Amino acid sequence: MGNAPKAKLLYFTAKMKIYDISMGIREDMPVYKNKKEKKPELKATRTLENGANESKLILDLHIGTHADAFFHMLANGKTIEKIQLEKFIGSCIVLDFAKARNKITINDIKRNNSIKKIKKNDIVLLKTRKSPMKKFNYNFTYLEKSGAEYFAGKNIKLIGIDALGIERDQKNHDTHKILFRKNIPIIEGLELSKIKPGRYFFIGLPLKIKDGDASPIRAILVEW
Amino acid sequence: MGNAPKAKLLYFTAKMKIYDISMGIREDMPVYKNKKEKKPELKATRTLENGANESKLILDLHIGTHADAFFHMLANGKTIEKIQLEKFIGSCIVLDFAKARNKITINDIKRNNSIKKIKKNDIVLLKTRKSPMKKFNYNFTYLEKSGAEYFAGKNIKLIGIDALGIERDQKNHDTHKILFRKNIPIIEGLELSKIKPGRYFFIGLPLKIKDGDASPIRAILVEW
Repeated sequence: MGNAPKAKLLYFTAKMKIYDISMGIREDMPVYKNKKEKKPELKATRTLENGANESKLILDLHIGTHADAFFHMLANGKTIEKIQLEKFIGSCIVLDFAKARNKITINDIKRNNSIKKIKKNDIVLLKTRKSPMKKFNYNFTYLEKSGAEYFAGKNIKLIGIDALGIERDQKNHDTHKILFRKNIPIIEGLELSKIKPGRYFFIGLPLKIKDGDASPIRAILVEW
Repeated sequence: MGNAPKAKLLYFTAKMKIYDISMGIREDMPVYKNKKEKKPELKATRTLENGANESKLILDLHIGTHADAFFHMLANGKTIEKIQLEKFIGSCIVLDFAKARNKITINDIKRNNSIKKIKKNDIVLLKTRKSPMKKFNYNFTYLEKSGAEYFAGKNIKLIGIDALGIERDQKNHDTHKILFRKNIPIIEGLELSKIKPGRYFFIGLPLKIKDGDASPIRAILVEW
């Protein structure tokens, strides 16, 4: 068991409290700009009368709760299966930006006292909504370029947001690129409406999709 | 931070050793009985010249490393998004059955001294191969009905195997049903060839696919 005594490990397992922070993958889920071609489809390929229920899923990689790989926006960026898994698991801080209007700028960040609690190698999640997403909001709160620069300078592992995108209305996709160039993958489409800002343990591993520009994930926060 | 002191949590994050035990999702991956219709397809829907690399994945839910939901074999069984997440994370034991021929029966189990180490609520992973799966093996080692009955009586959380199926050649799919009726989901297609038998912490969360009979997962073992 390496360095961890067995008894301790069992203790952690028993004491886990899990918060599911993932959107459901369903045909009627909200998708970016309500594009029909982004909706997932689940098709039965076999049923119990023939021995088993089986099905096939047609899935846009950028729907619901998903991780963007660097290749999404950078020609020479890593695809999803090549990004180290350590990025997607670890100590996490949920920051409250529900009061930010339209976008999170460096000024919104400076006004948020909790940013002082960010530590090296943290996973940072931005909460912008207080209720579950029922439909796509064209005016969703995004992380503006100046905000992205702030977090890119913080030696964080990963950043996430509860909107279906981390940016909009920035022609050159600066927010994505600023973060990606600092080796920070992006999680979009989190469901944080019931999560209190504060510190947790985050798990949200991407599928091992060869050449994937993104992956849907099941994301959770754990308290031990 | 609930009951766990912050310093302890940071310690765990820093000391993590992660073993990826997932198969890659790729068009040339081995699939059950080499059925062409089971191979995944990744199709680009947008490229960088248009602002971003994006794509769509067509995915049989039972390929590679995946979790079977009870609905896969039981008419009234839960679909994947309804199974509690606690099942898919926790203390885990990897058992060596590389010497079992064709199938793991109750006799193979009784001959394995490590089975005494199984604890209530464990996640049990069966290792049957010593090298990575390069192609589908029609004679893969499976968990025979008598073996399934043994594990079903053990109050375990979850069971997994490194073959693409947990059973074959049992007309009524007894192994699946015996385990499912005891509320034990099944992980198939693990990649355990480089993993030493013993105790670990397992994480392998299914996607939240509405009405899913299964889900691909990214599965890892962690040592702290």
